[in-house]
Amino acid sequence: MRVSVCVFILLLIASGLKAEDGSGLWLRNNFASPVNVVGSHKSTIFNVAKQELLNNWQGKENATINLLVKKDKRIIGDGFLLSSDKIQANTDLGILYGVFELLRQQQTHQTVSEKVYNPSYELRLLNHWDNLNSSVERGYAGKSIFWRTGENGLVVTENDKRIWTEYARANASIGINGAAINNVNASPDILRPDRLERVKAIADILRTYGLKLYISINFSSPKIVGGLSDSDPLNPEVINWWKEKVKEIYTLIPDFGGFLVKANSEGQPGPQDYGRTHVDGANMLADAVKPYGGIIMWRAFVYSSEEDDRAKQAYAEFVPFDGQFRENVIVQVKNGPIDFQPREPFNPLFGAMKKTAIMPELQITQEYFGHSTHLVYLAPMWEEFFHSDTHQEGTGSTVARCTDGSIFKHRTAIAGVANTGTDTNWCGHHFAQANWYAYGRMAWNNQLTSDQIADEWIKLTFNPETNVRVALPEDWSVNFLKPIKQVMLESYEASVNYMMPLGFHHIFQASHHYGPGPWWERDGVRKDWTMPYYHNADTIGVGFNRTITGSNAVAQYHEPLKSIYGNLETCPEEFLLWFHHVPWNHKMKNGNTLWDEICYRYDSGVKQVRQFQVVWDKAQPYVDAGRFDAVQRRLRTHAHDAQIWKDACLLYFQEFSRKPIPFDIERPIHNLDEIKKNDMDRP
Amino acid sequence: MRVSVCVFILLLIASGLKAEDGSGLWLRNNFASPVNVVGSHKSTIFNVAKQELLNNWQGKENATINLLVKKDKRIIGDGFLLSSDKIQANTDLGILYGVFELLRQQQTHQTVSEKVYNPSYELRLLNHWDNLNSSVERGYAGKSIFWRTGENGLVVTENDKRIWTEYARANASIGINGAAINNVNASPDILRPDRLERVKAIADILRTYGLKLYISINFSSPKIVGGLSDSDPLNPEVINWWKEKVKEIYTLIPDFGGFLVKANSEGQPGPQDYGRTHVDGANMLADAVKPYGGIIMWRAFVYSSEEDDRAKQAYAEFVPFDGQFRENVIVQVKNGPIDFQPREPFNPLFGAMKKTAIMPELQITQEYFGHSTHLVYLAPMWEEFFHSDTHQEGTGSTVARCTDGSIFKHRTAIAGVANTGTDTNWCGHHFAQANWYAYGRMAWNNQLTSDQIADEWIKLTFNPETNVRVALPEDWSVNFLKPIKQVMLESYEASVNYMMPLGFHHIFQASHHYGPGPWWERDGVRKDWTMPYYHNADTIGVGFNRTITGSNAVAQYHEPLKSIYGNLETCPEEFLLWFHHVPWNHKMKNGNTLWDEICYRYDSGVKQVRQFQVVWDKAQPYVDAGRFDAVQRRLRTHAHDAQIWKDACLLYFQEFSRKPIPFDIERPIHNLDEIKKNDMDRP
Repeated sequence: MRVSVCVFILLLIASGLKAEDGSGLWLRNNFASPVNVVGSHKSTIFNVAKQELLNNWQGKENATINLLVKKDKRIIGDGFLLSSDKIQANTDLGILYGVFELLRQQQTHQTVSEKVYNPSYELRLLNHWDNLNSSVERGYAGKSIFWRTGENGLVVTENDKRIWTEYARANASIGINGAAINNVNASPDILRPDRLERVKAIADILRTYGLKLYISINFSSPKIVGGLSDSDPLNPEVINWWKEKVKEIYTLIPDFGGFLVKANSEGQPGPQDYGRTHVDGANMLADAVKPYGGIIMWRAFVYSSEEDDRAKQAYAEFVPFDGQFRENVIVQVKNGPIDFQPREPFNPLFGAMKKTAIMPELQITQEYFGHSTHLVYLAPMWEEFFHSDTHQEGTGSTVARCTDGSIFKHRTAIAGVANTGTDTNWCGHHFAQANWYAYGRMAWNNQLTSDQIADEWIKLTFNPETNVRVALPEDWSVNFLKPIKQVMLESYEASVNYMMPLGFHHIFQASHHYGPGPWWERDGVRKDWTMPYYHNADTIGVGFNRTITGSNAVAQYHEPLKSIYGNLETCPEEFLLWFHHVPWNHKMKNGNTLWDEICYRYDSGVKQVRQFQVVWDKAQPYVDAGRFDAVQRRLRTHAHDAQIWKDACLLYFQEFSRKPIPFDIERPIHNLDEIKKNDMDRP
Repeated sequence: MRVSVCVFILLLIASGLKAEDGSGLWLRNNFASPVNVVGSHKSTIFNVAKQELLNNWQGKENATINLLVKKDKRIIGDGFLLSSDKIQANTDLGILYGVFELLRQQQTHQTVSEKVYNPSYELRLLNHWDNLNSSVERGYAGKSIFWRTGENGLVVTENDKRIWTEYARANASIGINGAAINNVNASPDILRPDRLERVKAIADILRTYGLKLYISINFSSPKIVGGLSDSDPLNPEVINWWKEKVKEIYTLIPDFGGFLVKANSEGQPGPQDYGRTHVDGANMLADAVKPYGGIIMWRAFVYSSEEDDRAKQAYAEFVPFDGQFRENVIVQVKNGPIDFQPREPFNPLFGAMKKTAIMPELQITQEYFGHSTHLVYLAPMWEEFFHSDTHQEGTGSTVARCTDGSIFKHRTAIAGVANTGTDTNWCGHHFAQANWYAYGRMAWNNQLTSDQIADEWIKLTFNPETNVRVALPEDWSVNFLKPIKQVMLESYEASVNYMMPLGFHHIFQASHHYGPGPWWERDGVRKDWTMPYYHNADTIGVGFNRTITGSNAVAQYHEPLKSIYGNLETCPEEFLLWFHHVPWNHKMKNGNTLWDEICYRYDSGVKQVRQFQVVWDKAQPYVDAGRFDAVQRRLRTHAHDAQIWKDACLLYFQEFSRKPIPFDIERPIHNLDEIKKNDMDRP
């Protein structure tokens, strides 16, 4: 231990960089030049904006910047017009976003030119799956930043306020304007007065940076909290209870955003418990919040164990309701039809519900991407998602255009399941911060590329020179920025390769979703919660037949996708096993058999992660020792566990394919039965 | 599980080879042609020899073979003269050995030509570190084949007899003629009458194949078993007690071989407890067994915690006694000066004690070679050892010639610490059988090459065609024999590479000696039982300075070795860190720095094992499914654990070298603290 510490200190000295703990996120700037800020408006947000500029200005010394709140047709919502000496916006919040954009451009060494920046979505939310007991479902970065336990767990401390303020500022800096602060698997307790007091305290702080607060509610709250005999949405007592509860909330939080609801899904209560529909439930709540300007985000993540194909159920259940939801209801739809898998085709609900506001739900926390242990930059996945063409209103009806108001004129919104926690660096893995950052940036502008966002993020997060008026060192750009960006951009495809290439999905181990478990099943567990349900491996082949000869899920896609996906010859190979049960000997486009290609894909994923390690190790002179060491450690485990994924999947599927692993591939170094015995979770 | 079994059966059918369990060792032949055996002698051994010929003859049908016991000056000891139609020997046992040689030549498709075969050593022993409680110290193949526990543990069963017979036959087939059947860390109980009854039963069976039985004794037996007041070797009562005990043993076992003694070593009692010397102890026992033709094997494996360098102590303690031991005492010396490390220079005692019978002790069981998990063929190490030139009587005074009677005219003997146990395949790893085989073959002829022995062993053990009159399939030779032999020949150097290259030694974890543990030390544990004692890593460099500026252990070697080893520039690089504390920047012969070379060596070891996996997987069509699967499994763990060795050692020593691991080397995938936490033993 003595030696380790010693080496650590030496590395520190060697790199000449102050050890960092990642707590500053992409907002590490600690240098400012004098600047004259002109303009005033009597609002907290405006003042915050002004102060940010004064604290962080890195442009020309004593330059003058005008902050101007003035309507302009070109500016939409909280957008802004930015030029080198002026920020103009419709709202004070637009000014704040303009300030952050200006500072970002300074810190990333861009030349500021006049341009209007408008948000793609009106509501850009984080969903926190934080439980009131302070745990975070699918959280890998410590405890909840909102909820503490213990005797004084509900007392709002100075530390709470500090964290919430930093949290709000970080979100505002990337355009996020709302947060649902408790788990969608919601405890009814959130609606009890003492919890609402704490909610109010959080809202008071988030508001200073323009974030609205939302809460997830449990549909049985009237019965559980209110003591009513049921929670039937058509029961006048229930309707009234909600009205009163909403009033109570708005009294505390006048700008309260609304409710997020997971109903009749995975055991959660909902209107169907009383023979009512999703529409009945959502509209009743919508009516309750309507007078205050609130909204209801109603999740479409539903599937029952009786149906033949889980992938079809959200579509089947919701499309018939199109046009029946209140205008302040937004149906929240996960990007893919199953559940945040490494790679899914887009959910066919996008573009299909033309008379309903539909908002995408993305998952920032890496439930299915190696938690906070693997380095996986998710922006390329989201980019792929946004650019997916639904063809619902002709060619070019991308998911982005179907959801951001370009095609359908409804409310627009987007949600990301947060990856934040009480860890010093907020996200567990230093590089997981990039996913929070990228989500915010894409929620603001769904046409940003993952490359551009990575470039920004690396510069903001790792630039060794916080005084940006000193030019970025050339060797830093060549030896750090470029290779690290390459790692980030490749990391998503790498993780698909070593986990679930070619359309494999949901072959995780048990419920922690970390390690591989294509074999996983248990007596008494519903079929669609076991893994063979998803891969259907047998001696003939592997994959889920969703064509017309199978579940016919392809029929939920608009032509020509239905035909393209439904035909083995035209189906994109990245979705092959998603839509088809494919013979092991099937010839792939590159000439390999399916079996060999599966082997090569898993192997290439492992090799990619090993290459990431080399890149990171070479980058050591350009990173402070604290973050270098932390990332290096995680990359080791990442490579180690990628190998387990490869070994497990190849050895397991080999039992069906009965074919040798190509001999130019490194052999498995684990035995299948030993992997199976070891419940491979990582904190 | 269902699928696994199914695949297994299919593989079986695919390969067309009957699944084998390895129980037949290298004696798998189950085919015989008629043969006329001429010659008779009224002895069990002669009849056994005859029967072996009848049961296993694979030469010309109805050929005639003469077995002739007749002295011939060219034939020494139990040697024999072999020609295509005759076996002549001085003794019946010589005939048996001749029969096994003839059958081996048939089964390995050699042409039998007239030649005399004489043994290099008169006594060719196995030492079993079997405890009376049925456990085996450093045994990795089940329980003891000699000792059982339980209520009827001492009852000799038919199964006991069957195992002992198979054991004796296997040994005779490779020329082994003696076995010490209990641990050198000896329980005094071995000398109690009930245990001696079982010893007699074992001896009765071993005798049928020409093996003499020896036992290890505890020097305190007179006190513990005999109830005397002490065990002082000069105490007349003690002397008398031993005489009576020896008489009792010889009454039971008239051809009893003698005692093996570990005295005043690692806590075992010995003559020094009473102020006497090794000579006093050994000679007293020698006098007791002398009348019956018995011998005493007195181990020189001694070291105390006070001395400065453990490597020097056996030499320092024993050389002064040269010439003082009785002629029926043989001093048993481990091949290296420390303890069966992956690579040691030869023990300087060899050739230095000119007036004393010295026998080498080799370790067949893989205490320091990955137990029965790693595939390590040890013959290349022993070959290196035998050919080491001590220079004690001029150039060419190899260890072989110093111990086999070529130079010094004393009794000659050799011992190997056995790797046998109750596992179905005797040795745990199928390839560990090769080490038992090779030991026997080299004990018979210390000039055999490891290549030749591997060739024989593979043909005997894996030849798919047991009727040898069918020629060996050409593709089998090309695709199995050749690559598998290459794996075996490379495996020793590979394990040195991934465990202890360049003269590293004794950096194992804790006391199980499986995993890496260069950091291992404990409060209160004597220095020479901790690992930093052996590597002395610091910021300057690494290695044990045994030159004149250090412990001066080099002075125990005869010139020119003393000078060669003592000089950093001339010291063979494989012993560099054994003899020198070498700066990390030291330039190696290939131009690498020491640090880089260490990294490359560890890495190449891992790569070698990975290559072994490929070779084995490719060999699948030529191996029965039972053994294919068992070896494949172990190779996976082997590769996995080789990687842990590499990661642990590189990360640990990097804390001292403070240099990067060369970037063309695959990065560690384990974190050092996690390896340290995990006590990495393998069954």
